[in-house]
Parts: sequence; C-alpha cells; structure tokens
Amino acid sequence: MAIKHSEPLSMNDSNIDVLPPPTGYSKRPRVMRFYNTPRIIGRMSVVGEKESKGPVGKYFHKCETDDKMGEKTFERAEIRMFDTAVRGAVRDARLNIEDVDLMISGDLLNQMTTSSYAARDIGVPHIGIYGACSTMTEGLMMSAAFVDAGYFTNIVCAASSHFATAERQFRYPLEYGCQRPPYAQWTVTGAAASVVGKNCKQTERFPKIVMAIPGLITDYGVNDLNNMGAAMAPAAMDTMFTLLTQSGFNVDDFDMIVTGDLGKLGSDILRDLMRERGIKLGQNYIDCGNIIYDVEQKCYQGGSGCACSATIFNSFIMDKLMSGEFKRIAYLATGALMSTQSCYQGETIPGISHAVVVESPYCGED
Amino acid sequence: MAIKHSEPLSMNDSNIDVLPPPTGYSKRPRVMRFYNTPRIIGRMSVVGEKESKGPVGKYFHKCETDDKMGEKTFERAEIRMFDTAVRGAVRDARLNIEDVDLMISGDLLNQMTTSSYAARDIGVPHIGIYGACSTMTEGLMMSAAFVDAGYFTNIVCAASSHFATAERQFRYPLEYGCQRPPYAQWTVTGAAASVVGKNCKQTERFPKIVMAIPGLITDYGVNDLNNMGAAMAPAAMDTMFTLLTQSGFNVDDFDMIVTGDLGKLGSDILRDLMRERGIKLGQNYIDCGNIIYDVEQKCYQGGSGCACSATIFNSFIMDKLMSGEFKRIAYLATGALMSTQSCYQGETIPGISHAVVVESPYCGED
Repeated sequence: MAIKHSEPLSMNDSNIDVLPPPTGYSKRPRVMRFYNTPRIIGRMSVVGEKESKGPVGKYFHKCETDDKMGEKTFERAEIRMFDTAVRGAVRDARLNIEDVDLMISGDLLNQMTTSSYAARDIGVPHIGIYGACSTMTEGLMMSAAFVDAGYFTNIVCAASSHFATAERQFRYPLEYGCQRPPYAQWTVTGAAASVVGKNCKQTERFPKIVMAIPGLITDYGVNDLNNMGAAMAPAAMDTMFTLLTQSGFNVDDFDMIVTGDLGKLGSDILRDLMRERGIKLGQNYIDCGNIIYDVEQKCYQGGSGCACSATIFNSFIMDKLMSGEFKRIAYLATGALMSTQSCYQGETIPGISHAVVVESPYCGED
Repeated sequence: MAIKHSEPLSMNDSNIDVLPPPTGYSKRPRVMRFYNTPRIIGRMSVVGEKESKGPVGKYFHKCETDDKMGEKTFERAEIRMFDTAVRGAVRDARLNIEDVDLMISGDLLNQMTTSSYAARDIGVPHIGIYGACSTMTEGLMMSAAFVDAGYFTNIVCAASSHFATAERQFRYPLEYGCQRPPYAQWTVTGAAASVVGKNCKQTERFPKIVMAIPGLITDYGVNDLNNMGAAMAPAAMDTMFTLLTQSGFNVDDFDMIVTGDLGKLGSDILRDLMRERGIKLGQNYIDCGNIIYDVEQKCYQGGSGCACSATIFNSFIMDKLMSGEFKRIAYLATGALMSTQSCYQGETIPGISHAVVVESPYCGED
C-alpha cells in the first residue's frame, strides 16, 4: 500500500473530503494522564560541530568539535557523549548520581550498546528501551509514569545517536563516500538527557509532564532505507490524531506541536495526512529534523536519529517552557523500526511515535 | 577484573569469610511494590522441537516441529511464533485483541524487528524494551507497574528468540558448522507472552505480581561471546542480593527462586557468588537454562535466549502457581548486553537482571 500523497501541497482546502480516522486507529483510550505532576527538573544536550552551526545551535549546552572525541572508535565517542549528557542533566537537577533511582534509555545501535555501556559506567539501575528515534518520548513517558505512580523519586532518561556509527550500521561505511539521494536525512550526532523528578516545593518551578500516549506501529509500505521521513509520517499522524481526539486539547491549545525527525519531506506528508483528516497544522507545528540544519549545510531533508529531537527538546523547547514563552507543548518523537536485515529480506519499514504533553510551570496563570 | 571463582564447588562452608555486598550495590531502595495486585491472567508458550523434548517439554503449550514454520526466512518464523504466543495469551485471558491496551515486548534481533513486526500486525499500541534475555521480567515489571498505577487495564508482554536467527546474528552462519566450546549455551527457539490485568472479581483466581526490581548493569570482565552464563551471573547476584536485603523476604520464603538462562556453569557461579556473601541457595533455586535441555541433547551448559526463561515461566512455573503448589516465587531473568560490534572492538560483556516476585492466589491461605 503506497502513501496517498497526490498533489497535497497545492490542494485547495475547501475541496477536501475529510477521510476517516487512520487505519488501525482505535477508540480505546490510550492517553496516560499524570495527576501527580512529574516534572523535568534537569536536562542536558550535547551535539557535534555540524549541529552546533545549525539554526538552533546556540541553544545546545555543549558542542563536541571532534567526531571521535579523542576515543578510538566512533562507538566509544557516542558512549562518551551519552555519559556527558546524563551526568550533566543530573548536575543540572542539583542531584548526585547516587540520588538517581533509575535510568531509562536507548539508542540506535544493535543491542543498544551505547546506552548499556554508558549505564554500566554510571552505575544506576537501568531499563533499556527501544523505539528507534522515538526513544526520547518513550523514556519521558515511562519516567513520568514511574514518578507519577510513586515508585521512584528521580529518574534520568536519555537517548543518543552518532552520524558515523549509524551510517556504518544502517547504510554504508563512511569510507565508501556514497552519494545520498535527495530525500535522505542526516543522522544527528548528539546525546541528551532529562531528569524527571517528583513534584515538591523545590521542583515547582520546573515544567510538568501532564500526559503521554504510547504509539501504535504503523506501516504504509515504504521500503527505502533512505526515506525515513515518509516511513514515519503515518505513525506520527496516528498518535497526533489520538492526541487531538482523546486528550481534550485542540491544535490551538498548544504553543508548539513538535515532531521528532520527519525532515522536510516527512513533515510535509504529515501536514497533508492530518489535513486530509480535517486537522490543519499551522505555524505552531515544527519538526526537529526540519529545523536542526540550515539548507546550506546540505543535509537534504534534514536531521534524523534519536538525538535529533532529544537535543532540541532538552535545549530550545525546554528553555521556552522554563521561561513561560511556551505554555504547553506536545512532543511526538518518531521512530522507524526496521533493521538492515529486515530490509534485505524485503520487509517494509514500520514507524512508531510516542507523545508527551509538557506544560510550563506558568501554564494557566493568565 | 576476572571472576573470583577459585574452587568454589568444593568450598567448605564453615571456612568462608563473608564478602561485602557486590560492587556497585547501592542501599538506595529500588524495590517497586505493587499494592493494587496486578495479576497474570493469561499466558502462552510456543517452542521448537528440541525444547519440546527436554525435561520440561510437556508443560509447553505448543510445539513447532519445523524451524522455519513454512516461512521463507528464520526471521519470519520467529515473528510467526511471537504472534502465536501473543494471540494465544490474549485468548487464554478470555480477551479479544481489541481489549488489550498495550503491548510491551522485545527480542534479541538487531533493532528488535521480531517484536516490532509482530506488533505491527497485531495492531496494539506498543512499547519496545531491550534487556536481551532479561526481556520477560522487564516486560512483566513494566506491565505490572502500569496496571498497578491504573494507566491501563490489560497489557500483554512478550519475548522471543530463535536458535537460527540468533546464531546468524551473534556467532556464525549455521552453514559453517562451527564447533562450539564446552561452556557454550544453546539459544532456545520459542516465544512466550503473559497478559497482566487488573485485580477484580473475575481475575482473583490468578497469580499476582507483588514486587519488581529493575536491574543494575554489572560487568566482571568476561569477553567471550560463547560464555554468557559467566557474564550474567554477577548481575543476577546483584539483583538477588538486593531482593533478599530489601524486600523483607528470605530465601526460604520462596518456593522457587528462578533465574533466566545462566546455564549450568553460570548458575554454579551464582551459587558461589551468593554463598560468598553469606546467602545459601538450596534446593529451591533453579535456572531455566539449566533445566530446559537434557544432558543427552548435547547443549553443553544449557539454554539461553529471551525465550528460555519466558517459555518456562509461562508454562511450568505458572502452572504450579495456578495450582498453589508454589505459593511465592522470585523470577530473575538475566541478559547479556553486548553486540558483536562491541565485542570486536574489545569491550567486555555487561549483564543485567530484572526481578519480579509472583504469588499464587492461594498464598497466605494456610
């Protein structure tokens, strides 16, 4: 089944027949509501040089100018970035590592070695999650749930990706110098972490996670390893549709709706898919993959990788939430769940998108 | 740092100096207690032919005699087994797929394609987890927490592994006919699923998950891809030590303490590591890897893989809990968190072990 994407950008709104809800959409409620106000009390984002020169570069907390960061392998470099982000987020929350009850994290590498090796060295109990590039919202969702339910007080969640490790694993060794198709995206080199802590006097000035939606795996038949945006857009649509029909919020209730790393092409597809269902995304919709690089940086459709939305959320978005410029945002990271093996065997690429809704501490004050 | 394993099997108990708690052991509480009594209301285990001929073979629900199950690839066969187990567990809980709120699952393959592709076809919202062979307890822990906290009513959690897909990915293609060292284990071909549902009149005859402990990643320096048991035993020790010092239960409070897939060698190491810390595991300790195959089946140290303990828990152990023969058990699945890439790059193998404590509905009745 191919994506329905017939001339949607020039489509005249008044002519649209609103399509039924997405295939597989279920009316069964799947919004998790957090009544005990878990809060994001610390965060850090680390990126590579290319990312630091992009449009949102000034918001990131640390830039690593050497892709290997003095390590022997790119994989070790990714572990190092991951470690820096986690320890930085914990410090930002004015905690020591010993005060952290649990770490929930993942990455893109086979068997998630970045996250596991970093967790081994950090020495905090660990839950490994896999959601490809949707890892950050999966981690925030689970951390918020565990803190909200009272199982733990402080949980750090994190995600990372690295251009060189991801290219080697998913596409070709860098040394081949392969030409990239115009619809390709560029894997972000970076790592980011958030500390989710329970609501109390000390934490009341921090943004709160008010709800989350676990994603439904959605597959519209894309099988091109380079075209991740098109593969993930239907999953983002499914979760966004659920959010806007089950949460009680409309598009206008959000100062910003942020998707993970659909890129230019993928986010255009998402706008169309939503419009076909009667929901118009306006100026308050952005895609992290679309904004992380400048057109002149030649990354074609934009950024991808776990770190893409994770670093932007933990810097730019969180800054605006802390200051009250954004009162409420929805963050839908998106992941493509294939492996090279599954693609070689002729499988298509399923996508997933988990969502969290985060409110500024100043939300509801005016 | 090498494992301390000097002649422990013949060690005279009276001569032991009790060692301090394991390295990295933290006194910070990490037992999650479930006061709202989430229950395991449905389950299914599917295995391959070899497993069905082992000592616990008669307990499994379904045996697939063809390793490819009529599919084109071993990977598709694993997806099919996974699907059978999930749908079977949901049926066993007298539910329809539409009644299931969430699926939490994982497997061993790169980017967890088995679990993602199966979830795509099943069409239930999905959270992907990665804990290598500890996936089943990770899934039970999260499902129990989400049901206990009231976010969802019915969650299915599942795990799978397949000898042929795992060998190809982690070791050598089967066609090579490689000789296996005597300390190797055999990856179990199988899949298993449990449905965790909330406590109510209809579910009160089912076993309840009363607590869980997320694992700490532990690494004693083993770097041999064939010697998983030795790599995982220290992680099992850490979690078991935490269980026995923080839960309020002693070894004797459990009718059975079950570890995942340490195998013969690994479970001997665990007994020694525990004994060195003053805790003696007796007749009520078993390891699933150790009991799944018969010595005559030439699997050396026994079984491994996510499915090893997942299938035994969902058949043999759950049967005994349902009947009341076991009143309370602790189930500690164990995972080794390396990838082939990390091993080629000279990394050692970190292990993890998540624990759940499950009680029979008849627990506390006598």
